Amino acid sequence: MFIQIEPSSDIPIYTQLANQLIELIARGELSGGDALPSVRSLAADLGMNMHTVNKAYHTLEKKGIIAIVPKSGAIINPPVQAGIQDSHRARIVEELKPILAEAIVLGMGKEDLVTLASSIFADIKGE
Amino acid sequence: MFIQIEPSSDIPIYTQLANQLIELIARGELSGGDALPSVRSLAADLGMNMHTVNKAYHTLEKKGIIAIVPKSGAIINPPVQAGIQDSHRARIVEELKPILAEAIVLGMGKEDLVTLASSIFADIKGE
Repeated sequence: MFIQIEPSSDIPIYTQLANQLIELIARGELSGGDALPSVRSLAADLGMNMHTVNKAYHTLEKKGIIAIVPKSGAIINPPVQAGIQDSHRARIVEELKPILAEAIVLGMGKEDLVTLASSIFADIKGE
Repeated sequence: MFIQIEPSSDIPIYTQLANQLIELIARGELSGGDALPSVRSLAADLGMNMHTVNKAYHTLEKKGIIAIVPKSGAIINPPVQAGIQDSHRARIVEELKPILAEAIVLGMGKEDLVTLASSIFADIKGE
């Protein structure tokens, strides 16, 4: 599992870790039912605080991506078949809004944005 | 200028403030050349720490959205006419990627995502 953290980034380390785990799942490198490494071992591997890994795992749990199961640890939820849940969709909207506003302010047009989002999506899915 | 901060959100307050200012600019409620309120007065209006407002303003400066000018304060940059700069586009890609990965993991399809992004974009632009 390849994780690369940028310590000088403005993005908090736990968010970088959570984002990279999400991307590994989206790319199919980690699958539903797989266990993530224990907090202790991932913290040791990445040379980071256990608290940081724990915070990343709780972020994924809150987003509905993993379940934290006593004794078993962090387990990736099975892939969603029936389409995104309304509550998750609403959160995606809230997450997208500031970035799309930023893109508008910086001069990006709608066609350009839609093409960009579509190509990032295809890249992650390996299409 | 209507700003609403959600203290219980996981999103840091300075990020919430920066995002809302970006959205006000994207919506045309604040325009290029306009001065933002002074750090002191906005902090007082919103009942927040001056350090928080300062951090939000520096975030906007780093993103190329405002200029912080000695004596004049924070001035919104003129609207971009010639399309988004490559460096800004690259940042938008990095910002979009984790959210699109999250949308994929949570079961959103490409068409659905593109339609969603397009409708958020139109909503912000008031189209």
